[in-house]
Amino acid sequence: MHERVLFGAAYYNEYQPDDRLEQDLDLMAAAKFSVIRVGESVWSTWEPENGRFDLDWLQPVLDGAHARGIAVLLGTPTYAVPPWLARLYPEIAGERKTGQPIGWGARQEVDFTHPGFRFHAERVIRKIVERYAGHPAVIGFQVDNEPGNELLHNHGVFQRFVDSLRHRYGDVQTLNDEWGLVYWSHRLSDWADLWTPDGNVQPQYDVAWRQFQADQTTEFIGWQADIVREYKRPDQFVTTCISYERPAMADDELIRRLDVTAGNPYYAMQDGLLHPQTEPASQGWTTNGTWALYLSADRMYSSQQRPFLVTETNAQSIGYPWDNRPAYDGQWRQAAWALVSRGASMIEYWHWHTLHFGAETYWGGVLPHNGRPGRTYQEIARIGAELEAAGSLMTGLTPDSDVTMLYSLPSKWLMQKYPPLSHEDGSPDRQSYQGLFDPFYRGAFDAGLQVRILHASQFTGSVQDHPVLVVPGLYLADDELLAQLVAYAEAGGHLVVGPRTGYADREARARTDVQPAGLAAAAGVSYDEYSNLTTDLRVLGFGDGAVATRWIDGLQVDDADVLATYDHPHFGRWPAVTTRACGDGRITYVGTVPSPALAVALFRWIRPSPAGDLPGSVTVTSATTADGRRLRFVHNWSWDEVSLDLDAQARDVLGDVVVDGKLDLGPWDVRVLLDQ
Amino acid sequence: MHERVLFGAAYYNEYQPDDRLEQDLDLMAAAKFSVIRVGESVWSTWEPENGRFDLDWLQPVLDGAHARGIAVLLGTPTYAVPPWLARLYPEIAGERKTGQPIGWGARQEVDFTHPGFRFHAERVIRKIVERYAGHPAVIGFQVDNEPGNELLHNHGVFQRFVDSLRHRYGDVQTLNDEWGLVYWSHRLSDWADLWTPDGNVQPQYDVAWRQFQADQTTEFIGWQADIVREYKRPDQFVTTCISYERPAMADDELIRRLDVTAGNPYYAMQDGLLHPQTEPASQGWTTNGTWALYLSADRMYSSQQRPFLVTETNAQSIGYPWDNRPAYDGQWRQAAWALVSRGASMIEYWHWHTLHFGAETYWGGVLPHNGRPGRTYQEIARIGAELEAAGSLMTGLTPDSDVTMLYSLPSKWLMQKYPPLSHEDGSPDRQSYQGLFDPFYRGAFDAGLQVRILHASQFTGSVQDHPVLVVPGLYLADDELLAQLVAYAEAGGHLVVGPRTGYADREARARTDVQPAGLAAAAGVSYDEYSNLTTDLRVLGFGDGAVATRWIDGLQVDDADVLATYDHPHFGRWPAVTTRACGDGRITYVGTVPSPALAVALFRWIRPSPAGDLPGSVTVTSATTADGRRLRFVHNWSWDEVSLDLDAQARDVLGDVVVDGKLDLGPWDVRVLLDQ
Amino acid sequence: MHERVLFGAAYYNEYQPDDRLEQDLDLMAAAKFSVIRVGESVWSTWEPENGRFDLDWLQPVLDGAHARGIAVLLGTPTYAVPPWLARLYPEIAGERKTGQPIGWGARQEVDFTHPGFRFHAERVIRKIVERYAGHPAVIGFQVDNEPGNELLHNHGVFQRFVDSLRHRYGDVQTLNDEWGLVYWSHRLSDWADLWTPDGNVQPQYDVAWRQFQADQTTEFIGWQADIVREYKRPDQFVTTCISYERPAMADDELIRRLDVTAGNPYYAMQDGLLHPQTEPASQGWTTNGTWALYLSADRMYSSQQRPFLVTETNAQSIGYPWDNRPAYDGQWRQAAWALVSRGASMIEYWHWHTLHFGAETYWGGVLPHNGRPGRTYQEIARIGAELEAAGSLMTGLTPDSDVTMLYSLPSKWLMQKYPPLSHEDGSPDRQSYQGLFDPFYRGAFDAGLQVRILHASQFTGSVQDHPVLVVPGLYLADDELLAQLVAYAEAGGHLVVGPRTGYADREARARTDVQPAGLAAAAGVSYDEYSNLTTDLRVLGFGDGAVATRWIDGLQVDDADVLATYDHPHFGRWPAVTTRACGDGRITYVGTVPSPALAVALFRWIRPSPAGDLPGSVTVTSATTADGRRLRFVHNWSWDEVSLDLDAQARDVLGDVVVDGKLDLGPWDVRVLLDQ
Repeated sequence: MHERVLFGAAYYNEYQPDDRLEQDLDLMAAAKFSVIRVGESVWSTWEPENGRFDLDWLQPVLDGAHARGIAVLLGTPTYAVPPWLARLYPEIAGERKTGQPIGWGARQEVDFTHPGFRFHAERVIRKIVERYAGHPAVIGFQVDNEPGNELLHNHGVFQRFVDSLRHRYGDVQTLNDEWGLVYWSHRLSDWADLWTPDGNVQPQYDVAWRQFQADQTTEFIGWQADIVREYKRPDQFVTTCISYERPAMADDELIRRLDVTAGNPYYAMQDGLLHPQTEPASQGWTTNGTWALYLSADRMYSSQQRPFLVTETNAQSIGYPWDNRPAYDGQWRQAAWALVSRGASMIEYWHWHTLHFGAETYWGGVLPHNGRPGRTYQEIARIGAELEAAGSLMTGLTPDSDVTMLYSLPSKWLMQKYPPLSHEDGSPDRQSYQGLFDPFYRGAFDAGLQVRILHASQFTGSVQDHPVLVVPGLYLADDELLAQLVAYAEAGGHLVVGPRTGYADREARARTDVQPAGLAAAAGVSYDEYSNLTTDLRVLGFGDGAVATRWIDGLQVDDADVLATYDHPHFGRWPAVTTRACGDGRITYVGTVPSPALAVALFRWIRPSPAGDLPGSVTVTSATTADGRRLRFVHNWSWDEVSLDLDAQARDVLGDVVVDGKLDLGPWDVRVLLDQ
Repeated sequence: MHERVLFGAAYYNEYQPDDRLEQDLDLMAAAKFSVIRVGESVWSTWEPENGRFDLDWLQPVLDGAHARGIAVLLGTPTYAVPPWLARLYPEIAGERKTGQPIGWGARQEVDFTHPGFRFHAERVIRKIVERYAGHPAVIGFQVDNEPGNELLHNHGVFQRFVDSLRHRYGDVQTLNDEWGLVYWSHRLSDWADLWTPDGNVQPQYDVAWRQFQADQTTEFIGWQADIVREYKRPDQFVTTCISYERPAMADDELIRRLDVTAGNPYYAMQDGLLHPQTEPASQGWTTNGTWALYLSADRMYSSQQRPFLVTETNAQSIGYPWDNRPAYDGQWRQAAWALVSRGASMIEYWHWHTLHFGAETYWGGVLPHNGRPGRTYQEIARIGAELEAAGSLMTGLTPDSDVTMLYSLPSKWLMQKYPPLSHEDGSPDRQSYQGLFDPFYRGAFDAGLQVRILHASQFTGSVQDHPVLVVPGLYLADDELLAQLVAYAEAGGHLVVGPRTGYADREARARTDVQPAGLAAAAGVSYDEYSNLTTDLRVLGFGDGAVATRWIDGLQVDDADVLATYDHPHFGRWPAVTTRACGDGRITYVGTVPSPALAVALFRWIRPSPAGDLPGSVTVTSATTADGRRLRFVHNWSWDEVSLDLDAQARDVLGDVVVDGKLDLGPWDVRVLLDQ
Repeated sequence: MHERVLFGAAYYNEYQPDDRLEQDLDLMAAAKFSVIRVGESVWSTWEPENGRFDLDWLQPVLDGAHARGIAVLLGTPTYAVPPWLARLYPEIAGERKTGQPIGWGARQEVDFTHPGFRFHAERVIRKIVERYAGHPAVIGFQVDNEPGNELLHNHGVFQRFVDSLRHRYGDVQTLNDEWGLVYWSHRLSDWADLWTPDGNVQPQYDVAWRQFQADQTTEFIGWQADIVREYKRPDQFVTTCISYERPAMADDELIRRLDVTAGNPYYAMQDGLLHPQTEPASQGWTTNGTWALYLSADRMYSSQQRPFLVTETNAQSIGYPWDNRPAYDGQWRQAAWALVSRGASMIEYWHWHTLHFGAETYWGGVLPHNGRPGRTYQEIARIGAELEAAGSLMTGLTPDSDVTMLYSLPSKWLMQKYPPLSHEDGSPDRQSYQGLFDPFYRGAFDAGLQVRILHASQFTGSVQDHPVLVVPGLYLADDELLAQLVAYAEAGGHLVVGPRTGYADREARARTDVQPAGLAAAAGVSYDEYSNLTTDLRVLGFGDGAVATRWIDGLQVDDADVLATYDHPHFGRWPAVTTRACGDGRITYVGTVPSPALAVALFRWIRPSPAGDLPGSVTVTSATTADGRRLRFVHNWSWDEVSLDLDAQARDVLGDVVVDGKLDLGPWDVRVLLDQ
């Protein structure tokens, strides 16, 4: 627990064409920076030749930071191997397809499981950490960077995959049976028969392959963390920075090898933060939409169910050369407080400078290319001052939640190859898991509710912690989890089930049970069939504008109340939404992917917003401070000035005034209120 | 000739997680199934290790079927090679590009021409067929499955391609001359100079390459059929199941090596069967549109100009995981009777179960994943009962036709690489042959006419059999065929010529003749130039809504009547449609790709529908029974109830009642009437 | 200087299935052809086997042409290597990615830098040129054809690239510093560390790589030209034909090794020539739009700032099999006179015949496939007659210009990999340089102005020659050039700067200066930030319909007049267009990509059209004859007849009548007027 939310940026003095260290650090201090991240990208600077080390260059940076009270997060440089290492051991090049090495030239191109890489990585890590662990500025370590970027198809990786299957299943006959390899003549006679992933079309194989890939990343990061722990002080932490959409990474498993969660939420600025949006929003490598920014924050919280560090987020603007969209005035501040409200205990921009060379020349920093503090700096300095003023009140927040959602990485991975949803043109939607999950999250958010996300493995069944539990798209689920969901409802919880949940077991085998498997009896509905939707359907029973999209379960009501139906001569025979009391609780089944309007109406029925009626562009989130007090964060995501009535007196933390009655917000404004 | 139309499904007992053989067969019997197809996908079950065979497992299936009077179609498993074979002989992996083997993991990945494959394939075929040919349930054999899936670029295949050219052309100078290899410095000095197909841009090469690929498939299937014939009883037949869009397959040639045509028509259900459609419909791997379902049936009939087996068609719904669209009530029944009306003597669904594992987990069977008979089963059982009631009346039907269309596989293949049509964005339309052919087929269908399709090689010139002959897109045509077309008109036929017909000779050389080559004098029109259309043009002379699309021939009238023109300052100089008496017959030239409305108007002018005026959603097709009586099949492809007036008394075969006067059809309904 | 503008076509008698040489030449003579191009595509005819030459076949063509007064441009056949050479030396196959040879089968597939290729190329060149250089018909030579088609990744090419860097930078430390290789651990320890271009993401590398590739083409063409010069007569010229969008070609550098510029402008016909267009027009491999046809002509002029030859342009229509769009009557004539008006001293169609075989079967010639002169021939013969009548008046024209634009190939190349602009769907626009440059060119053209294009290297700073200088997208610029631009304004020029100009130095390093670097003080504006535009913005101050698209520089006004602003709560803080007097001249800064309407309004403000008010579809361009007289070329690019008032008496050169007062033009008409 720090005295205040850490605030700063990644800092690469070594990338600057001219020496401007002192000037930079002074500007940071003026912007109330308290942390920088350094050193993670320059192995070839630490070790310009094989075995020749140059470790001194960072000393002035650490000293200068320390002199100004700025703490340092020190990175290990393993994600970017030097060209001499690539030259010496071409066999460490990663392969995206068997036998097709990735050309060197960017970063994260190598098979990080290869001993040739590991030997050199360990040596440079030990050199750097040994040298600087004792520096008083260093508060923690980041090992590697955004790991899990590739599904490695290298020979050694594949052979260990086969070994891992041998260890799990024992003999090929068991694998033949478990994976259904009778199908299409896939039965193995020996482990040597196993085909490489390139030609695989078997979902069962894909489940194991994706988990194995995530395991490699967990093992690699854990291995690095353990090396660092040999050197670090007890007050220093070890983490890595997580990019949550990396294909070979399971954040909940990875984080067990580390001390604290650190994530890199990037988001579309400008009109990308308008709220509410009226259309479904496509998510790219950044999130798009206010609700999606909160979703990214809630996912970071979910890795450990604890506050987290933001190691990277948009400074000037982040994107490709063709996608520069720096924020409108106020938006940086809004985003920072949004992240803090959901549990961020550090906000670190990427990055301080803007690079003059290299692939990321247009990933804009706090300073523009000319190095002069401009609008971005001013906007960010304003946040620094506010965070300093807020001080320890903001550390260790527990963000509130009204509803809980279960998240399933294995289901998401599988749906990337076997998506249940299509795009409008009929082509497969590789983001089908998000296509099932996000509309529910967004509906809750737009209905004024706050969401806690749990990895399925973290679910304890507690009704008290989770009065409402929403579970869409949990395609891969074992019997125990399905039973636990029913038990949760019986114990008083409100279980809301969405499409595709429980359909398959942990081997991605479609269940032979009546669907929704394990839940049908308790939910009072069942289905034999389902349909993709070519066109949206009007839904009757949840107000105007409620629409079913993309998918319909053909629900037969055994014993449940029908809340909504479809306006269609065929699909109209089936209900869209049903609900049934179940023990002390309730199970509601949603048989389609709800449109934004349907999702909002659904969540308004499930649970009224604690914030009451608000102007359309206003969101209110809340959190409990470490000492048990309550904070509310009021945002206005629009160009229009808005007013709202407060139900109770509160202190405006940022303005340090008491607010009683009417609260006025300007364009793209945010207020932080402490309940009195 | 069987006593009734065979009815059933592909049955894979071996794929089920639990034993439910007896239950399944009882359910089939209750649904009046008379046939199942078995065994074609599980080589690794027949032969789990190299040379170790396990042949017993199928016995209970055959015995159980036989006990219930269900016949069996037994497959050879060669389309899915076991992993041990792939491991032993990696050289049998097929190559889509020279030197780039297809990764093992799906099926049909191998070079089926390779002796290493052939040796093992022959051994397993002989084992299976020897064992089961004598079983009383077995009525026939399916060798392999949907062959011709790949254009194999393997070394041996290419070398035999060179040999085949050497055998045909004799010496390279002849090839240089015939192929025009003076162009771009392509003249060969020796056969060893011939380039591989990867870099080829020469149409003449492509013609030979595609025919050679189809020949490989014909030879392979014939080889298998001949092996089976060594064991089969005289009452048993040999076939393979044809997927008509396979790139390396010529159905008319392939079928000469087999006893009966068997095809796998899959079609879009739900709104995909609405009739009439108002827009051009894109065809995917399934057909899309009622007219397209009939087109697929008429193509199956065309392989041999004889009734055919439907070895596979949609059960619950067929598609990718993202494309589940099970039929509306009634649609299965409509499709089954549509297929029967066009000559199907077997309807076999794919498949009985729905798979719990593997790539086709979402290719839904008659039973859903839970194994309980549901809506699909009930709908299909209704058809079983109707077919049983109809009995031998429906076997050996000759479907009626009002117009005949010539089909050219070589033209279609060439247009996949050198398409004359573009998509709206200007990119090439690889389905250009269909883009030329289908609008005419659809126009005839929508005008209430029935179509007989002939492979160009099957055309005899008979005016009596083919009073109207429609020929669009016959790009590759030899002089004899063109002369035959003129002779047909002179003998009294009505020849309707569409764009691109006769433009090139059999080597895909653009002809030096005045175009339409060989036809210009008889048609009374000629053209020097043509144009793609960027935007549609209004056509004057064929009623409102008639539109020219995609292509225009710049027709100059030498001696013909102009039926329609274009509304355009440039294209308006040329007629859109002309006609000219020619001997005892007539030649009509259509210089554009007609819009649906133009095509319907054109066919209404060519030949009135024998069914007269019908409600828009109603189609009437007809056939002659084996004993010379006439059947009419009346479909209503919509949600609306419709009534129509019958011109004569008829017996409703399905309801076994006499219909006189008004005929009422419900939504998605079909009636089968026997003329009294 | 020839007596008249040369007029003719590429002629490939050797491609014809039948001998029609005499007939062809007679038809050419009747169409007043004065030139043909021959021989450049048939190495395998010149040398059917390694070292066996057949040189006689061309003799009748040259003799026949000479007998009819038709001159000949003789090509060397090196762009299409024979199959025997590909077979003997597979190592000469070009590679688009390292280690992935291009399959033989088209042309331009080889690594033309490889000695194995050079040896054979030199031998065949010498044989052909030695044989025919003395023929009286031959007026010049074309070496190779449209060079620079591939970025060659072959081993030898890459190694010489490394050598070239070693020669330029001396040691790796200098390269590390200059390229910023500290970034992402890219510092080299040795030249052997340099990565291949396949995996490169470093812009600095890309700048060098693209220049090196262009250098290879320049060296190769120069090498060929020097060989030809050993044989040619003094009155003969050497050129190559340039396709201006080739990736590995710098026309201004290439042309220094040749005697005269020759280019191949292809353009969309039919509605592609409507003027004015109202929408942004996408450019494919042909130009699209009247303005774009003129742009292609002005780029040809820019290679040497001298008149040029048109070696190829559309005959019947040029395109892929799916893109046949032969011109409307009059359009060929319009295009020919448009090219002549901008400096073409030869118009040569591609090609005389239409091919009956090969990849270009649908690249239509003057004659259609049937070899009969048709509409295209008649239209082209009309031009031949007019050019003959116009005679020497049209040779050596200097096209007029009202504004000058700077062109930067290095900036264009870099933006292909690092584009600043996106498509509407957010994907990168690899034609971003054109996206910045073309709207300004088009705006000038649509405003009735004529444009002179200068390669940045050709800019002398002359105000007299270039009273207005427009510079958008000049991303890569050295300090000297930026200083020269300011000096130009100070000396009295009107400098118009567009987005991205001057942002980076010659190594593509973003500058540390205040932007626009080197220009900010003189322009009186500066910016720290910029933004891509997701949606267009209304611009206030330049009339109705003025719109900002795609990009905005966040201009801060230090000392300039604001001419236009954005209608937006965020972007509205910045001006769209500013202007400031600077010395004796002026600098106008345009901070966005102007819509067509904004660009026209901008240029109307910059400089009124000398042609005054014209009907919308009319353009007037002008040129000075060799003897100092003035020609005006008046086009009507529409179906509508138009009239305009002449300000002075003129002679209608084509009709040989005097025009005084009103000038009437028919649809797709053109008049050429000589001022009296």
